[in-house]
Amino acid sequence: MVDFDLGDRLQQVRERVHRFIDTEVIPSEEELGHDYEKLEALREELQAKAKKAQVFLPHLPQKLGGLGLNWRQTAVVLEEAGRSLLGPQALNAAAPDEGNMHLLSHVADEEQSTRYLHPLARGEIRSCFAMTEPAPGAGSDPSLLRSVAERKNGKWSINGTKWFITGAEGAAFTIVLVQTLEGPTMFLVDANNPGFSLQRTIPTMDMFMPGGHGQIDFIDCLVDDDAVLGEVGKGFEHAQVRLGPARLTHCMRWLGIAGRSMEIATRYALERDSFGSKLSEHQAIQWMVADSYTEMHAARLMIWHAAWKLDQGERARQETSMTKIFVAETIGRVIDRSLQICGALGVSEDTPLSHFYREARPFRIYDGPSEVHRSSIARRIFREADQT
Amino acid sequence: MVDFDLGDRLQQVRERVHRFIDTEVIPSEEELGHDYEKLEALREELQAKAKKAQVFLPHLPQKLGGLGLNWRQTAVVLEEAGRSLLGPQALNAAAPDEGNMHLLSHVADEEQSTRYLHPLARGEIRSCFAMTEPAPGAGSDPSLLRSVAERKNGKWSINGTKWFITGAEGAAFTIVLVQTLEGPTMFLVDANNPGFSLQRTIPTMDMFMPGGHGQIDFIDCLVDDDAVLGEVGKGFEHAQVRLGPARLTHCMRWLGIAGRSMEIATRYALERDSFGSKLSEHQAIQWMVADSYTEMHAARLMIWHAAWKLDQGERARQETSMTKIFVAETIGRVIDRSLQICGALGVSEDTPLSHFYREARPFRIYDGPSEVHRSSIARRIFREADQT
Amino acid sequence: MVDFDLGDRLQQVRERVHRFIDTEVIPSEEELGHDYEKLEALREELQAKAKKAQVFLPHLPQKLGGLGLNWRQTAVVLEEAGRSLLGPQALNAAAPDEGNMHLLSHVADEEQSTRYLHPLARGEIRSCFAMTEPAPGAGSDPSLLRSVAERKNGKWSINGTKWFITGAEGAAFTIVLVQTLEGPTMFLVDANNPGFSLQRTIPTMDMFMPGGHGQIDFIDCLVDDDAVLGEVGKGFEHAQVRLGPARLTHCMRWLGIAGRSMEIATRYALERDSFGSKLSEHQAIQWMVADSYTEMHAARLMIWHAAWKLDQGERARQETSMTKIFVAETIGRVIDRSLQICGALGVSEDTPLSHFYREARPFRIYDGPSEVHRSSIARRIFREADQT
Amino acid sequence: MVDFDLGDRLQQVRERVHRFIDTEVIPSEEELGHDYEKLEALREELQAKAKKAQVFLPHLPQKLGGLGLNWRQTAVVLEEAGRSLLGPQALNAAAPDEGNMHLLSHVADEEQSTRYLHPLARGEIRSCFAMTEPAPGAGSDPSLLRSVAERKNGKWSINGTKWFITGAEGAAFTIVLVQTLEGPTMFLVDANNPGFSLQRTIPTMDMFMPGGHGQIDFIDCLVDDDAVLGEVGKGFEHAQVRLGPARLTHCMRWLGIAGRSMEIATRYALERDSFGSKLSEHQAIQWMVADSYTEMHAARLMIWHAAWKLDQGERARQETSMTKIFVAETIGRVIDRSLQICGALGVSEDTPLSHFYREARPFRIYDGPSEVHRSSIARRIFREADQT
Repeated sequence: MVDFDLGDRLQQVRERVHRFIDTEVIPSEEELGHDYEKLEALREELQAKAKKAQVFLPHLPQKLGGLGLNWRQTAVVLEEAGRSLLGPQALNAAAPDEGNMHLLSHVADEEQSTRYLHPLARGEIRSCFAMTEPAPGAGSDPSLLRSVAERKNGKWSINGTKWFITGAEGAAFTIVLVQTLEGPTMFLVDANNPGFSLQRTIPTMDMFMPGGHGQIDFIDCLVDDDAVLGEVGKGFEHAQVRLGPARLTHCMRWLGIAGRSMEIATRYALERDSFGSKLSEHQAIQWMVADSYTEMHAARLMIWHAAWKLDQGERARQETSMTKIFVAETIGRVIDRSLQICGALGVSEDTPLSHFYREARPFRIYDGPSEVHRSSIARRIFREADQT
Repeated sequence: MVDFDLGDRLQQVRERVHRFIDTEVIPSEEELGHDYEKLEALREELQAKAKKAQVFLPHLPQKLGGLGLNWRQTAVVLEEAGRSLLGPQALNAAAPDEGNMHLLSHVADEEQSTRYLHPLARGEIRSCFAMTEPAPGAGSDPSLLRSVAERKNGKWSINGTKWFITGAEGAAFTIVLVQTLEGPTMFLVDANNPGFSLQRTIPTMDMFMPGGHGQIDFIDCLVDDDAVLGEVGKGFEHAQVRLGPARLTHCMRWLGIAGRSMEIATRYALERDSFGSKLSEHQAIQWMVADSYTEMHAARLMIWHAAWKLDQGERARQETSMTKIFVAETIGRVIDRSLQICGALGVSEDTPLSHFYREARPFRIYDGPSEVHRSSIARRIFREADQT
Repeated sequence: MVDFDLGDRLQQVRERVHRFIDTEVIPSEEELGHDYEKLEALREELQAKAKKAQVFLPHLPQKLGGLGLNWRQTAVVLEEAGRSLLGPQALNAAAPDEGNMHLLSHVADEEQSTRYLHPLARGEIRSCFAMTEPAPGAGSDPSLLRSVAERKNGKWSINGTKWFITGAEGAAFTIVLVQTLEGPTMFLVDANNPGFSLQRTIPTMDMFMPGGHGQIDFIDCLVDDDAVLGEVGKGFEHAQVRLGPARLTHCMRWLGIAGRSMEIATRYALERDSFGSKLSEHQAIQWMVADSYTEMHAARLMIWHAAWKLDQGERARQETSMTKIFVAETIGRVIDRSLQICGALGVSEDTPLSHFYREARPFRIYDGPSEVHRSSIARRIFREADQT
Repeated sequence: MVDFDLGDRLQQVRERVHRFIDTEVIPSEEELGHDYEKLEALREELQAKAKKAQVFLPHLPQKLGGLGLNWRQTAVVLEEAGRSLLGPQALNAAAPDEGNMHLLSHVADEEQSTRYLHPLARGEIRSCFAMTEPAPGAGSDPSLLRSVAERKNGKWSINGTKWFITGAEGAAFTIVLVQTLEGPTMFLVDANNPGFSLQRTIPTMDMFMPGGHGQIDFIDCLVDDDAVLGEVGKGFEHAQVRLGPARLTHCMRWLGIAGRSMEIATRYALERDSFGSKLSEHQAIQWMVADSYTEMHAARLMIWHAAWKLDQGERARQETSMTKIFVAETIGRVIDRSLQICGALGVSEDTPLSHFYREARPFRIYDGPSEVHRSSIARRIFREADQT
């Protein structure tokens, strides 16, 4: 039976996270200011507090130290955490680590788990996921994969360039997807491997990501067979394990930022006078507020529904694609309206809105641009229609 | 726990309705053509078939001859029924009768039920609901109510003009909302009351409604105390019982039409060549399809969620308002895109799309125009934000 | 020097047309009602009045009995005429005759002019232009042209099916574009030619066009060499003479309808009370009005600019494509908003808005759907960018 | 007669400016990088080059050292200059100096001109314009003006706080608008006046403005009668002299940035492969390009038309309001699409697009937010409609 009841336990976790974000995380935003160098230290400090507050690692099983939430429950918690750009990091549920943990927990063997997954889950290290390549390599179109791994003296030699690798700077290791004779394959590579070379952190409009977005050159980067993650030649299949859910957890977190933006804007509209009445009594402002909440409501339900599909063990490719587009475009509009409602104050950095504005924009490109998802969605619809 | 599983029984009913619409109702559309005079006869015929097919009266309890579905289940079934403009009439779940049955089943006393609700449920009569007035009376703003009922020789004398009263022509009775000294009050008025005068059926852009949209003048229309529906002075409260759910069942039905439009358009796009490939391979067409399905998916989830709230016994005013706007605007866009995909064929009446286009437009105005709902939604958000 | 001064003479013609539409044409709308059979008679009557009022045939040279306006001046006058769906017909400047006159005045030889152009210009006959074919023929993609003309016993035998041929019923002749061995070619065919067979008038959502949109079968339709319009094999080139300007004059006329819609809506908003103030004081209404006038202003300037290009003797393909999309989408939004502002009244047929709504929709498809124009526009931009 | 011919001289100036931007200004963008501290020095250097290239001071009369262009001609030149954020500064035609020069050239007396206007025109000093106040003062609603000037010992004592004063840091003087007993009044205040106190430069999302956006406190700021600009009590009237044109020159410059964004994006789309073809052959990309050029075309014509009105000596309040909204929203969409087309590269700072994205957003708020303009536009339309 269709049901939207969250249940008591989840309600409690949700409130705990909400309170944690309000009392511990949001105050840290100001502390951080624009000094993004402080991010790593702050992250560590907040994670310690999150452990104490019992909100750490919501998405992993309890045996890995997590709260053991399923995807639907994770959706509720990550939206709360997402109210601050620092929130998901505090809970150790930020990208790309959260997606990597999920992938490792499904594909890594025991040794790999001990070496990579466990310290990642404890927040001791950070990681990255190296798939995207600069033109003419694999961007939106993964079939263009140009990085390779070849057998060489009983080892694998990895060569190629990856970019927009989130969290690269400071990551202890990366999962990298390259072409082999047997097909696309994933490898675990330590950042201190001499063949791993972080060329630069690409300056981008979003700034709040520890480790930034890096360009990594792999130059005769040698690894042993035990560095193969999952099976040789199954790289694309393994990537699917990560991509759908990772796309969805992005949505969960970003929805939180959209909600926070509207909290700020509605508060402002209730207080600010303009042309003889409160801003909140102006119909144009009311419309922006109504549309934003309506669209966030729709976005939330789509996330829950896709999460339910994942919980049933389905790939939910159609649902995560539809949700990704809808959420990416909704949060863009919502943050934009929040900023507009706050006027000059919104443009200033006296509120976090102008940060949110910059941080959220790339999500319409990252994880598959809207253009690519739209075509994929339609092709699935046509395929199905063609069979009936 | 959040859940989207429909359950076996509902799946079966859904499929039964889907098949019924495909095999019995859609073929009748052509039979009808533009000869809307045939509507009443066709309706009767289809209802007989619906009873046989066990899809009649989905929304009413079994003791009233219905399928006994709750709101969430009704949502699934009415979307299926809505795939044809004739579908809801076939199931006896069309506006305004469906809303009137709901209202009567909550507010009518036993005698009133026997006299009005039971024959309505059996499909023997039609009814209407007279609330809207021409300017300067109660349109979007119900506080402007100008029709009145006054005590006169132990009876009530009703005076006033109502318009856009759906289904008026041919209705056996109406529920009318008027002002009294004690406040807004609802009355049950037989259409053959000498004081009930159907002035005209207003020509409108939507044509598919048995009984059209009428203008009714009440001129010294005398009724007894037993004509009061519910309590004197409680007319607005009683109207609320009807308005939220009626708004939502509209959404359910219209979503069905949007889906049908896309069925037609995707079928056409799969077959039609243009500039060297099938239309379905053109990215612009893919976008229209992807956006339409994504938005319909969001709309469906919003309907289900609001229905769940109603099933919990809540008024769900915020949810039904948000859903009403979202659905009304979504179906407008979806039908518009379907028509565009089909090009000149869409403009012709060789498909039902141009009908759908005209029929659906008024829904952004009926049941509260988007402008009014948006302000209401925002005011509730501001009120809540102001208390925290 | 960039200039927007209309000049005195044009101002006078404009005012004359405005007054003519207000006093003679708009009152005829009601007279017509829904009885589209009356259209032909009404057209004749209005044309007689237009001649008397010196507003007849604005776009043709004085030697052909016209007002001798250039394209920019025609733009101003046709927008005024377009305020009523009957206006352009009254001025003998409606589609498809207006475009046919333009084409004939450029391509027809003297004999053809005497036989076809002159009576057309005097309003004595109507005509049509047969290019579009049903799938799999030439729709948006003219290269799919399947109708043919072959030499047969010293004559041409035309075979093929054309549809959505505006004005077909009652037309005295058609210009038809077909394939020949020498390439696409235009022929002048009398409607009483035994090989010319009007199969049906396709029922469409727009109703206001004398002669409707017909399907014509050409079955061994024999014509002599003097029926060739322009040169054999130059059909596409000749079509270009017609298409750009015809597209633009459509825009001029439709902009008039959009303006009229807003006249009706602003008048209503000034009078109607809602929630304690005039509708015109509601910010949501103000936005619809402001956006509509702003977009109509932009649309008008685009028309004037493209008209100026035509006056310089340029093809202005890019400008007419951009203008066509922009105007088609603008008038759709403007009429939609007008209808929304008027609420239930807008949905009724007590104002002409619901008619306008239906009549205007096809313009996003006729004369090249927006999808096709957008791709053409972009290709020209890319071509140019590639050369710099 | 409506005309869009630019004329030879203007074409030459336009090409000169285009070349200057390409060869001198755009290369400086990279030189600047993110080191906004260098802006002032760079500005000086570029202005020297602009003088040599005969593109300096396009908007002022030749007797003041300018090129003597009227508003329409200025529109063409400022769009070209606007292709780089540094362009208008190079030409000494950037906000707020350009608007201040215009105001001073109309209102300043001879002595004031010598002291303020002339050095400003020569580029020797910068200035600012202090009108906006923090809540509850004059923001979008100028009637809330709270800063005051009072007579005190034969002088004026100015008190109040102004914020978002563009270019404040490093400005040699400001024009400030305050309330007096006689009504709103403008004063010229030197930045070294002891009562002029730059409290801070507000951190904002836009960074490219020399002098930033400052908060200025006026604390018993004493000035003599000769500091009154124009007439006492006529501050609002004088502000109108500046506001309309300043709004329009903003539009001219921003349109240039939008155009440059599309230059970058089309270039990228022509080179980048994706899914088996160039990005430029993807219909979704074509649509973004077509819509952007179409909207920029409309925006340009609106600017030219409003400029023509100004050249006729009209206030053109309606036209500048409509143009401001349309341009502000158009450039937002165009830059957004450019960024989207370029994908990850657009998000990076390897192109200037992410800068443009941030710089352009505030224009929907500065110079009157869209919400306020829309209401003003509609009110004028209703006022006019009410009189006919």
